[in-house]
Amino acid sequence: MEGGNESQYEGQFFENYLRLRSKPDNFNDLLEFPAFTALLPDLEGRTVLDLGCGFGPHAKYYVEQGARHVTGVDISEKMLEHARKVNNDLRIEYVRCDIADPAIIDLGRHDIVCSSLTIHYIEDLTALFTNIAQVLDSGSVFLFSMEHPIATANNDEGRTNNLTDGYMLKHYSEEGIRQGEWIGAPITKYHHKFMTVMNSLIEAGFIIDKVMEPMPSKRLMKKVPRMKKQVNRPSYLIVRALRR
Amino acid sequence: MEGGNESQYEGQFFENYLRLRSKPDNFNDLLEFPAFTALLPDLEGRTVLDLGCGFGPHAKYYVEQGARHVTGVDISEKMLEHARKVNNDLRIEYVRCDIADPAIIDLGRHDIVCSSLTIHYIEDLTALFTNIAQVLDSGSVFLFSMEHPIATANNDEGRTNNLTDGYMLKHYSEEGIRQGEWIGAPITKYHHKFMTVMNSLIEAGFIIDKVMEPMPSKRLMKKVPRMKKQVNRPSYLIVRALRR
Repeated sequence: MEGGNESQYEGQFFENYLRLRSKPDNFNDLLEFPAFTALLPDLEGRTVLDLGCGFGPHAKYYVEQGARHVTGVDISEKMLEHARKVNNDLRIEYVRCDIADPAIIDLGRHDIVCSSLTIHYIEDLTALFTNIAQVLDSGSVFLFSMEHPIATANNDEGRTNNLTDGYMLKHYSEEGIRQGEWIGAPITKYHHKFMTVMNSLIEAGFIIDKVMEPMPSKRLMKKVPRMKKQVNRPSYLIVRALRR
Repeated sequence: MEGGNESQYEGQFFENYLRLRSKPDNFNDLLEFPAFTALLPDLEGRTVLDLGCGFGPHAKYYVEQGARHVTGVDISEKMLEHARKVNNDLRIEYVRCDIADPAIIDLGRHDIVCSSLTIHYIEDLTALFTNIAQVLDSGSVFLFSMEHPIATANNDEGRTNNLTDGYMLKHYSEEGIRQGEWIGAPITKYHHKFMTVMNSLIEAGFIIDKVMEPMPSKRLMKKVPRMKKQVNRPSYLIVRALRR
């Protein structure tokens, strides 16, 4: 979910995040969620591992789509407490764990692994993807979304996002940590180039099956004008990969 | 090679292109060529189809690396005439053909297909890649480079390239034709999003094996200061794919 390490949940972040997500015009619900769920395989009777589950909206959706069991993993106990309240279901188990920790392998085999907007908080993608490959059988789906490499390149997101005539891209080739501010709290992300996302998957034993850079429809841009900036610069990268 | 349809070779373009490529600090030789050739499989005794061969520098390199036969294809007779002069070899056959024409299938099976900086002149990537898949056996390599999607997005390349503090990205999500000027001549390119390059390969029956966004070394940036702009915005995308 949005927001990397536990410390990022201190102070105002948690409340601000919930406030943001409760707005009817938030990008997650309008842009990322529809594009992400459109790439899901049939979940009927399957087990799903949801890495970075946040307060559980995706996990809840998976069981609604017929998943037999969903393991929702998040680093934030605060987020998980809220998930157990607002997205509680007998078929969902919420577990506290840093998804970068190899301990996720101990969560055991799953039919599908999903991760929505969490991977841009992880520094070593090859290590993460290699751990994920351990819990999947050959041919199984790993579906994830992340902040787009074009979007994570800059340190000065806030400022550049205010540009209406385009997006000032900087530091694209300089991968690594990005210290910024988001919804009124300091936040740590990692910028990865396209090539690193693709090559880390391949090296970890995945076959790239589909790549998406979701764009708002004309109708959605009319409804939410600030989405027009997406035409110049996509916010999200979504990848469906198959375990080799 | 650089420069799409035959008409783009009229007037000054051809001479200007050769002048550009003869400069010791041209990006093709310093940045694209080393990154591209580093991804080549062993060419010893193999046959290579070089799509958009231009005046043949890659074709010549392939035979020097042991290729048994190279078929160099280009749309420009002018370019091929020059290739037969400066990169002539008994093992290289230069053929005039538009690489977007399904006629390339009639060139027959090859062990490897290469294409250096030509694919951004092609509108329909799925059609092109599907034709290329026809001349390759399962497991064979298709290696190509193209102008990076971040670089082709804008119409006003010339202006934005003058920005030293960053690259103003615009119209990324609006795929299609880009009319611009390059080395003193009008030029037509097509902007394809990263997702389109990847998905077109997958749909055409390829497995993505390696993705590169070549960056100049610190040494090279010191030698050629204008290369520092690459840190903000990569010029090239290189992909190695395997026939499924």
